[in-house]
Amino acid sequence: MSLLGIDLGGTKLAAAVFTEKGAILFKDKISLEGRSGHRAGELVTSLISRLIREKGNNRHSIDSIGISVPGIFNKKTGRVWAPNIPGWSDYPLLSEVREVSGDIQVVIDSDRACSILGEVWMGNAKGCKDAVFLAVGTGIGAGILVNGEVLRGSNDIAGAIGWMALDRPFEDKYIGCGCFEYHASGDGIARVTREFLIKESGYSGILSQIEPDAITASDLFTAFEAGDYLATEVINRAIEFWGMAVANVISLFNPEKVILGGGVFGPAEKLVPAIKSESLKWAQPVSVKLAAIEVSGLGGDAAVYGAGYLALKKLVSFDPSMM
Amino acid sequence: MSLLGIDLGGTKLAAAVFTEKGAILFKDKISLEGRSGHRAGELVTSLISRLIREKGNNRHSIDSIGISVPGIFNKKTGRVWAPNIPGWSDYPLLSEVREVSGDIQVVIDSDRACSILGEVWMGNAKGCKDAVFLAVGTGIGAGILVNGEVLRGSNDIAGAIGWMALDRPFEDKYIGCGCFEYHASGDGIARVTREFLIKESGYSGILSQIEPDAITASDLFTAFEAGDYLATEVINRAIEFWGMAVANVISLFNPEKVILGGGVFGPAEKLVPAIKSESLKWAQPVSVKLAAIEVSGLGGDAAVYGAGYLALKKLVSFDPSMM
Repeated sequence: MSLLGIDLGGTKLAAAVFTEKGAILFKDKISLEGRSGHRAGELVTSLISRLIREKGNNRHSIDSIGISVPGIFNKKTGRVWAPNIPGWSDYPLLSEVREVSGDIQVVIDSDRACSILGEVWMGNAKGCKDAVFLAVGTGIGAGILVNGEVLRGSNDIAGAIGWMALDRPFEDKYIGCGCFEYHASGDGIARVTREFLIKESGYSGILSQIEPDAITASDLFTAFEAGDYLATEVINRAIEFWGMAVANVISLFNPEKVILGGGVFGPAEKLVPAIKSESLKWAQPVSVKLAAIEVSGLGGDAAVYGAGYLALKKLVSFDPSMM
Repeated sequence: MSLLGIDLGGTKLAAAVFTEKGAILFKDKISLEGRSGHRAGELVTSLISRLIREKGNNRHSIDSIGISVPGIFNKKTGRVWAPNIPGWSDYPLLSEVREVSGDIQVVIDSDRACSILGEVWMGNAKGCKDAVFLAVGTGIGAGILVNGEVLRGSNDIAGAIGWMALDRPFEDKYIGCGCFEYHASGDGIARVTREFLIKESGYSGILSQIEPDAITASDLFTAFEAGDYLATEVINRAIEFWGMAVANVISLFNPEKVILGGGVFGPAEKLVPAIKSESLKWAQPVSVKLAAIEVSGLGGDAAVYGAGYLALKKLVSFDPSMM
């Protein structure tokens, strides 16, 4: 059996063909190169039809397809809301994919859901029934597993943790992305760095050599590694926010694990002990001692694994003997 | 059929005998009068044996018993952790009740779980599959319904929302109760009032006539009703915390409803529009527009209704035709 998992992000398309045991038979990554609307949709459908034609790159025929989307999949309409792909406020992805997939099953879900499912299938949440995947990248979101099932909410938009209120009073700058995401996403920490640079006019460190508008989270981590004091201040502040957020999901969900993923973890992996210490101060004391806090076991591939797992679960729901 | 629901609180024991439709046949309330350890347990068992003997106060024989406890019920051991009842750090309530209940089914659950179940059965969460009961009383906790089931977490301690981190940086005064509970529980707002009184030495309003250590949340609401400026300041600050917490559960859980209950709602009922406005600023914008925010439909009785519902569900799990 072979399963096609596709992770559509805001800037790239990752695909992998998996065995039912989660072994990767084939892997590919394509840049979106700024494609929007139907041109982004065509990238997905042409990849799928090519892999079906090539039998999963000359190995196996594809038995089932799972797709992770960077936003919300509406099960009732089969449409996708993906704020980072222009023209995808209500995109008919399911019907377009079905035009090329023939008899092969197709399942679509959000990247939040796929990330935690990927960790359950082949990553650090194996065997967990209650776990949280906190994705810190360009934005912030959470995939939350409750008693073995992904938390959906009444409109499939649960897990919007980037909107978590962590720093009173409210400021207008939180409109559009939420307080936690404003301060502590990848874009957020770059923005906070720029705010600090304006305040600290006497600063002449590494970051002063970069055009302020061009500063990225990656520049910030480089300066932090070099011991730059302004970068250290920004990172310590981010650790406080990340620790508070981890504490809050632990107090609310009492999970076995909180998994830190997304582009920032990555470079922030070595900050995990500091994030743990911060969360230990805030969280319900019994829950926080029982919860493991770890970075993703799958690096940037959690969502593509999760898409493969969606494909597997869809097959298994038709024939449970397959699992 | 008649169902006995018991709500054991930190200071009182409430009991009601219900029909399977949720009508109350008999109701009673007993003060704990400072009883601790086995003397508190005896209050529960003697009430149960009396009601069994009297056939639910001469009306019906009791068919099933549900008990709400102010803490955590450990299903594996049958024991209760209830921090507000001295001697109840690991109390064998289930075995003690079984000694007097004979063949009658007994179910025990936390007050958090019972409160949201009570609202689902006979209160404002009827028909909801995703809803949150935010209980603000002496302490703060949440009963959370996810896809029709109470959220438990991996150790049955989910919903510890009193520990929510909402105000950085961390202060040592949060140790022991959590940041949100420190600032915004019933005890919390009384404590904040005392802190304000110390800072505002020129204040000569209503609250200055009460011995600071004796000030309660109820005194604060009285002063607020009378337009006292210090009380208004404290209440506005509490509204900010309550609004942030409501926003956070909406962003994370995407519930149909958030129900505000516990002793403070009550007098804080008329503050709900202000709490809504505050949560609207912080929360995920789609989720918050779709979520209703209401006070409990059952006043202080949500947990006793929930205990009755536990009793009903236990019977129904043996004979589904009964529901």
